[in-house]
Amino acid sequence: MRTLKLTLAYDGTNYAGFQRQTNGPSIQEALETELAPFTSDPAGRGPTVSGAGRTDAGVHALGQVASVNLITDVSGSAIQRALNAKLPADIRVVGVVDAQPGFHARYHAKGKSYRYRIATTPVRSPFDRWFVWHVPGPRDVEAMRRAAALLVGTHDFASFQSAGSVIRHTVRTLTRVEVREAAGELVVEVDGTGFLRHMVRAIVGTLDEVGQGARPVASLRGVLAARDRAAAGPTAPAAGLTLVSVRY
Amino acid sequence: MRTLKLTLAYDGTNYAGFQRQTNGPSIQEALETELAPFTSDPAGRGPTVSGAGRTDAGVHALGQVASVNLITDVSGSAIQRALNAKLPADIRVVGVVDAQPGFHARYHAKGKSYRYRIATTPVRSPFDRWFVWHVPGPRDVEAMRRAAALLVGTHDFASFQSAGSVIRHTVRTLTRVEVREAAGELVVEVDGTGFLRHMVRAIVGTLDEVGQGARPVASLRGVLAARDRAAAGPTAPAAGLTLVSVRY
Repeated sequence: MRTLKLTLAYDGTNYAGFQRQTNGPSIQEALETELAPFTSDPAGRGPTVSGAGRTDAGVHALGQVASVNLITDVSGSAIQRALNAKLPADIRVVGVVDAQPGFHARYHAKGKSYRYRIATTPVRSPFDRWFVWHVPGPRDVEAMRRAAALLVGTHDFASFQSAGSVIRHTVRTLTRVEVREAAGELVVEVDGTGFLRHMVRAIVGTLDEVGQGARPVASLRGVLAARDRAAAGPTAPAAGLTLVSVRY
Repeated sequence: MRTLKLTLAYDGTNYAGFQRQTNGPSIQEALETELAPFTSDPAGRGPTVSGAGRTDAGVHALGQVASVNLITDVSGSAIQRALNAKLPADIRVVGVVDAQPGFHARYHAKGKSYRYRIATTPVRSPFDRWFVWHVPGPRDVEAMRRAAALLVGTHDFASFQSAGSVIRHTVRTLTRVEVREAAGELVVEVDGTGFLRHMVRAIVGTLDEVGQGARPVASLRGVLAARDRAAAGPTAPAAGLTLVSVRY
């Protein structure tokens, strides 16, 4: 039995998310289907792929990491080539290497980096339509940066967890929340050791309100203290979000 | 009667080309459909949109220009907003201004700029799959640049015209053919006063052979002299090509 570490890039537009779903195609399902020929489990079980981040429907990845246990002699690079030959073009395997036995992409992840793109041009580019949140108009970027800085560190992020979530332990540590200006867009980079469901998107929705002058910078302290989803801003749409990398 | 100049950006992936086609949707058809409510031609004729470049199926545009005659009092910016509200998200109207009466986007164009992207990474990015020609591996970029330089100027480009084309006058002037290196890709920029059908794509296919060492730089002179499509390299795929701008 070998444990493999897969690095994946995907355009999540046409998927119901990384994780297997009943309501649509998933990245996990696509990978497990194409990995099945490589395993020779005596009990006839198919491979189970675990992703470091459970990206939601429409969320993208540049460096998602997944783990899988296989009984096979085929080299990592040959598995990579075979997967890329079979998988749809919106999922690409960037690398396959042998990991320590027992490596688990989600449980062993030490941190993840996300990027969120807000397009601010009057007209949304037809090329970016699945990859940005288009909200035209100027922003107070300095205010967004000051608000972002208030989120860095270890806090209870319950106010930024999707409504209806049942996770009780909502303290997480963010090591970086940065707002960059790029051509016609704002890019929010968020690095952390762990994330609640929809947390990055709720942070972006809240920072955008600050940028539009609809929410004072200092209110972020109260938002964190409230531990109430209604205290923060809206959840920004999935399309703007990309899982950039996973740290181990 | 007013003559309007429209500047357009589109993702050509889902279109049979700019020009109205019987075999699929076109950019022209989409525009004429949405412009129809703005004209009040006494004879009941719908508007006819002319594009500066007849981009082929799958070819994209950042700054295509189109002209149309309308009988309407609505301002250019209101027409732009209405079109962007109605058109599919893969076609965006970047600007609408009043032009000189009689302005024709194709006949009055003085020059056009095209960009072609060749992805050279081992694995093609899932985000660029409709926007690049993916041919992994190293290139001799300097050789490509020397070959490109031989194409600048006024030449008979018959060897770079799509096979079966019936255009007799095949002399054209290219003012710039440049090969740039970007992250994981080569970008070929071609500016000229006029282009034959598939000319940029045949130039790119030929330059790529030079870059791969499959064709000597100096052979470009013989290719031009041959006036024979078979003398040049293959036609690079449509997806890599973008009409960047039109000069008047």
